[in-house]
Amino acid sequence: MSLDQASTALPALESFQPGDFRLVSGRPLPGAQLSYRRYGQLNPAGDNCVVLFSYYTGTDRSYAPWFGPGQALDPSRHCILAVNHFGGGVSSSPSNTAAEFPPVQIADTVRAVRQLLEHLGVQRLRLAAGWSLGGMQSLEFAIRYPREVEAVFACCSAARCAETNQVFLDGLAAALHADPRFANGPHGEPPEVGLDAFGRVYAGWAYSEEFYATGIYRELGYRDPAEVVASWGRDHLEHNAHDLMTSLRMWRTADLGAQRGGLRPALSSITARTVLMPSTTDTYFTLRESRAEARYLVAGELRELRSPLGHVAGRPGIRPQEQSQVESCLQSLLATTNPT
Amino acid sequence: MSLDQASTALPALESFQPGDFRLVSGRPLPGAQLSYRRYGQLNPAGDNCVVLFSYYTGTDRSYAPWFGPGQALDPSRHCILAVNHFGGGVSSSPSNTAAEFPPVQIADTVRAVRQLLEHLGVQRLRLAAGWSLGGMQSLEFAIRYPREVEAVFACCSAARCAETNQVFLDGLAAALHADPRFANGPHGEPPEVGLDAFGRVYAGWAYSEEFYATGIYRELGYRDPAEVVASWGRDHLEHNAHDLMTSLRMWRTADLGAQRGGLRPALSSITARTVLMPSTTDTYFTLRESRAEARYLVAGELRELRSPLGHVAGRPGIRPQEQSQVESCLQSLLATTNPT
Repeated sequence: MSLDQASTALPALESFQPGDFRLVSGRPLPGAQLSYRRYGQLNPAGDNCVVLFSYYTGTDRSYAPWFGPGQALDPSRHCILAVNHFGGGVSSSPSNTAAEFPPVQIADTVRAVRQLLEHLGVQRLRLAAGWSLGGMQSLEFAIRYPREVEAVFACCSAARCAETNQVFLDGLAAALHADPRFANGPHGEPPEVGLDAFGRVYAGWAYSEEFYATGIYRELGYRDPAEVVASWGRDHLEHNAHDLMTSLRMWRTADLGAQRGGLRPALSSITARTVLMPSTTDTYFTLRESRAEARYLVAGELRELRSPLGHVAGRPGIRPQEQSQVESCLQSLLATTNPT
Repeated sequence: MSLDQASTALPALESFQPGDFRLVSGRPLPGAQLSYRRYGQLNPAGDNCVVLFSYYTGTDRSYAPWFGPGQALDPSRHCILAVNHFGGGVSSSPSNTAAEFPPVQIADTVRAVRQLLEHLGVQRLRLAAGWSLGGMQSLEFAIRYPREVEAVFACCSAARCAETNQVFLDGLAAALHADPRFANGPHGEPPEVGLDAFGRVYAGWAYSEEFYATGIYRELGYRDPAEVVASWGRDHLEHNAHDLMTSLRMWRTADLGAQRGGLRPALSSITARTVLMPSTTDTYFTLRESRAEARYLVAGELRELRSPLGHVAGRPGIRPQEQSQVESCLQSLLATTNPT
């Protein structure tokens, strides 16, 4: 095995039990488990750590295209932690918890990650990053722990679930609940028809009008729009409906300005160098919202991810055209200092 | 009762039985009934008739805001026929037909309307018009009977169900089918949860990103986006799920260029003065598609309906800002000659 291969081989999934863990709602999360994978080693100064926060229906494994030898994020230089959010099916979630699973918020995973970093001896995060829901967690980390992170990359994301985003999610939830088997709970017979409908409705929002109208779907291997829709339906059969709904509610209720006097004070409190990178064609994490939020950043900026792929533009591993924009952004974010 | 009131009072719903009616698919539609309302009288020359084709979930009554004393469409000058499409719940539809209802196409209603016009003694249509699905029928009429119509107004419509439009409809259909009670058929216990989900998913597409993001929903009486979504869910409980699916399939399969060598020859064969009026923010009958189709028109043009209301911009009776643009367009379309 070459060094290159060694540095990108899949490390074991690790599990961390945050001590005496209470959710921000005040409710306990008994037996809370935060699962993650670590790529690369923490340096003696404890300042080369990068956290990649998982996105909706993604796991710790989903970010593989974002790092590797010679990339901006390189396990030979960085200690990369790919973390699974609560409710996502890998860390504590309805599907792997016997008891009734409480509602969780963006801040819950973030607080558990903070404990994990302390446990590992991380002094200061080099970067908190993520796509979509992962970007929301990254921003929450930077607001909550302003002195503990140097840079933030929020790709196709936002600091709140804006109105259009809410409407999108409400439609998804309705489609899933139309299947009466949703009531079977996370351990009963799954609502397969509802999951399929959920994925099909999702497909209409995940990309852009241009993606469908100009046939870009063919580049991604789809024959026609109906095949995109059917494929998204099938893909969602793999997920636990109650994990999906728990994570969806976390996303739907996200407002990092809540109890902080609003988005302006919350976002302007971020001291980390921050890049918001909205896709120019995103239908729910919209360019409009990112522009409004970018104006509140003191040490941040907006860089457009120019793409016809809609929200999917920022999803790791879709097309080189988008990956190169993400890579270039990560490079400049990490260029200011040179850890190790 | 004043003359003005008399001219806008609701006339009786009339029913026409097209003789020996076969669908374009070749299948019979036994007992076919075309229901319509007539406002105003046909003149002796038989050339002052206007047909308003119904839209999805709309009926003959939905177009009331488009005509009246002093408006471009005026029952004192025009004989206005507001016609219900097959499958829409008023004319022959699954809900009012005991036998299994066959799939219908845009052309089926149009062909039945042609028979009705002959029956009534109409020599030449002054105008064929409609919003959305109604515009599709108007265009089909003008392609199919080029010498029999002077003007066409297709508002937030298209000559085919384009890719993005397909994806939208596939999501709706999936949400409805997630309710197992859909299988009860058109005369069984209705799939209320599925109908509610159908309406909720619809709400996310019917308006625009701007509509939700900038709070325009308040102007329409909604408190927040969740209320828009819930309201659309409730509204769809009134509809028969199988009428909805029959009409949806008619819309989903619409391609007026099929078996005519494509959209270009089909649309360029229209001799009627034609206006395509897409909403600038429509998410499924897109500006892009209307622009492409307008280039094929010989005697037609595109006029933008400038609005943040998305597809709903052209729906009769929503806001004066949009109604005035529709009215102005109808006025110029009807200005060329002066029937009576």
